[in-house]
Amino acid sequence: MVKLDPWGSAQVKSYKKLMKEFGIQPFSEILNKLDDPHPYMKRGIIYGHRDFGRVAEAMKKHEKFAMMTGFMPSGKAHLGHRMLMDQIVWYQKKRALVYVCIADVEAYTVRRISRKDCLKFGMDYLAYLAAMGLDATKAVLYFQSGKDGKYHAFSKLAARKVTFNELEAIYGSLTPGKIVSALTQVADILLPQLEHGAMPTVVPVGSDQDPHMRLTRDIAARTKAEYGFILPSSTYHKFQTGLDGGKMSSSKPSSFIALDEDEKSIKKKVMNAVTGGRITLEEQKKLGGNPDVCTVFELFAYHVEKNDKELNRIYDECKAGKRLCGPCKKECAEKLAAMLKDLNEKKEVEKERIKEFVVLPDGA
Amino acid sequence: MVKLDPWGSAQVKSYKKLMKEFGIQPFSEILNKLDDPHPYMKRGIIYGHRDFGRVAEAMKKHEKFAMMTGFMPSGKAHLGHRMLMDQIVWYQKKRALVYVCIADVEAYTVRRISRKDCLKFGMDYLAYLAAMGLDATKAVLYFQSGKDGKYHAFSKLAARKVTFNELEAIYGSLTPGKIVSALTQVADILLPQLEHGAMPTVVPVGSDQDPHMRLTRDIAARTKAEYGFILPSSTYHKFQTGLDGGKMSSSKPSSFIALDEDEKSIKKKVMNAVTGGRITLEEQKKLGGNPDVCTVFELFAYHVEKNDKELNRIYDECKAGKRLCGPCKKECAEKLAAMLKDLNEKKEVEKERIKEFVVLPDGA
Repeated sequence: MVKLDPWGSAQVKSYKKLMKEFGIQPFSEILNKLDDPHPYMKRGIIYGHRDFGRVAEAMKKHEKFAMMTGFMPSGKAHLGHRMLMDQIVWYQKKRALVYVCIADVEAYTVRRISRKDCLKFGMDYLAYLAAMGLDATKAVLYFQSGKDGKYHAFSKLAARKVTFNELEAIYGSLTPGKIVSALTQVADILLPQLEHGAMPTVVPVGSDQDPHMRLTRDIAARTKAEYGFILPSSTYHKFQTGLDGGKMSSSKPSSFIALDEDEKSIKKKVMNAVTGGRITLEEQKKLGGNPDVCTVFELFAYHVEKNDKELNRIYDECKAGKRLCGPCKKECAEKLAAMLKDLNEKKEVEKERIKEFVVLPDGA
Repeated sequence: MVKLDPWGSAQVKSYKKLMKEFGIQPFSEILNKLDDPHPYMKRGIIYGHRDFGRVAEAMKKHEKFAMMTGFMPSGKAHLGHRMLMDQIVWYQKKRALVYVCIADVEAYTVRRISRKDCLKFGMDYLAYLAAMGLDATKAVLYFQSGKDGKYHAFSKLAARKVTFNELEAIYGSLTPGKIVSALTQVADILLPQLEHGAMPTVVPVGSDQDPHMRLTRDIAARTKAEYGFILPSSTYHKFQTGLDGGKMSSSKPSSFIALDEDEKSIKKKVMNAVTGGRITLEEQKKLGGNPDVCTVFELFAYHVEKNDKELNRIYDECKAGKRLCGPCKKECAEKLAAMLKDLNEKKEVEKERIKEFVVLPDGA
């Protein structure tokens, strides 16, 4: 059985199995409903969804809809966070009402992050998000602990709608902190509708967050009579592989690239990254490389190369043995370093400016 | 073992056993620290306490202190509620900063009371409290669900400080609703200090609420470094016996007298009440009655007779066989009816006036 733990370390071996067991639909089936899909949708990085149809329809008909998602403030901002930021900005450009939650209650109660660090990491993520292009004046950006009474009240009232058995079936082992945190996430996901009335809402998440979606959809259904919720939709993206070929983890610096990583370190990490290259140069020229298992190709696909044709060209060149790992890594590292340099310059500006648009944590 | 369940039906067979098992101190030991104790303290109705010494000292030295307590909005206001109201008003006269919570989160999540009924019952209790003499302009009166984010944030952060084992040891069987409700009560009890800084706080409660006190004191100790809490104190009062000799329960109308009970019904209930009288009139005149097991004497002691000398006279007359049940019941019923008539007249005035001083429930 596929076991998903939103509080554990994210790694999913088989996305197909996951879809089958939890009833997540393949995104490819719905791709043609969108006039201008996000690159991740076309590239199969966003691979699955629940009920995205009603969001696609709202986009097509120019009807109101919301995009809600969150960040766990548990460490330095890195490329994994950038994936989600990219989607958030895209949804705002598609006229979504954007809600972004910094899950400090969860980080504090379940992951044991200090409240000071929650604030520091969370503000950092939001500054990068603004640097990526989010218009903070039109978005709702908040820390869970700083939100108002109505929001917290709903999360408490939701406790009446669930049993231990249901929570255990969804989350596995429980602690008081996990229960409180799960109910808080339910309120997060329903917050756009609590504040602005019923509307389609999409929650772009990594697969490990699906348990929260299932619980929220159950509770939304059970409180529909009173609150009139439309069941929230979700999309699921793949996790970027760690540069060392294992899991991308903030406890292994060689596995990820931080958004504020310096140029020298970026180059070093990319040059050492695990690729789909062959053992010898001769072999690679003869047989071609394997971009499908290459962390450098992932860097192009997830972050560096925005143009689909260019990305396909890189893929084909690699397969044909015309693109060798040395120069390919060099190109990738240079483009990534330039992109992050630009991002950090913008972030320095946004860092101060964003403060007035954020619902800060309790006590901050 | 004595088992206390704050969500169950309150009945305590042996207060002594309770004190021994849970470390509640006899109130009699501390009575002399008060210049002007509440009648319940002198009459042994308030029989136990935890750390009341620091509250008595604050009262004596005219230092700031708080009184915090709550009502579960689960049914019509009756004499049981009046007991607590009487103490609240007394503490305000002794210059306590008064906090009164209507536990609607608890009533909704654990007792399954509708939100509409929570509001109706809760506002009714508060109107009676004002009619009893509380100055609402100087008190904090609130529904749990309507309180602000800071309050809810603290109750969530408290989740990190407890384990299932601890909650099970304190509360017995758990549900998600009970966990959320218990953590909400912790925030209630610490709210005066969260809002106004460290100070002695007394929580007058029935014995069944002691589990919340133990949990709160544990969490206050564990968060002392960050919040600087003084561990809250508590007093414990006995439960008034039902007029039918059993448990006073809102599901058995013959067991209690509602605060809005009409005169005819009051008289009927008192005339049918279980007393400490003998089988025959002759026997009673010869042997005397037993006021210690008489629900009518309880009515005098808990509600009707404010003067201690008069109360002692009633007790002695009964013991001596000079006071017979018929006339005694009649006297009690008439005095009680007059008292409640006066209370309801005042309540009609307060009903509207109090609204602006109450933090209403979420959505109301």
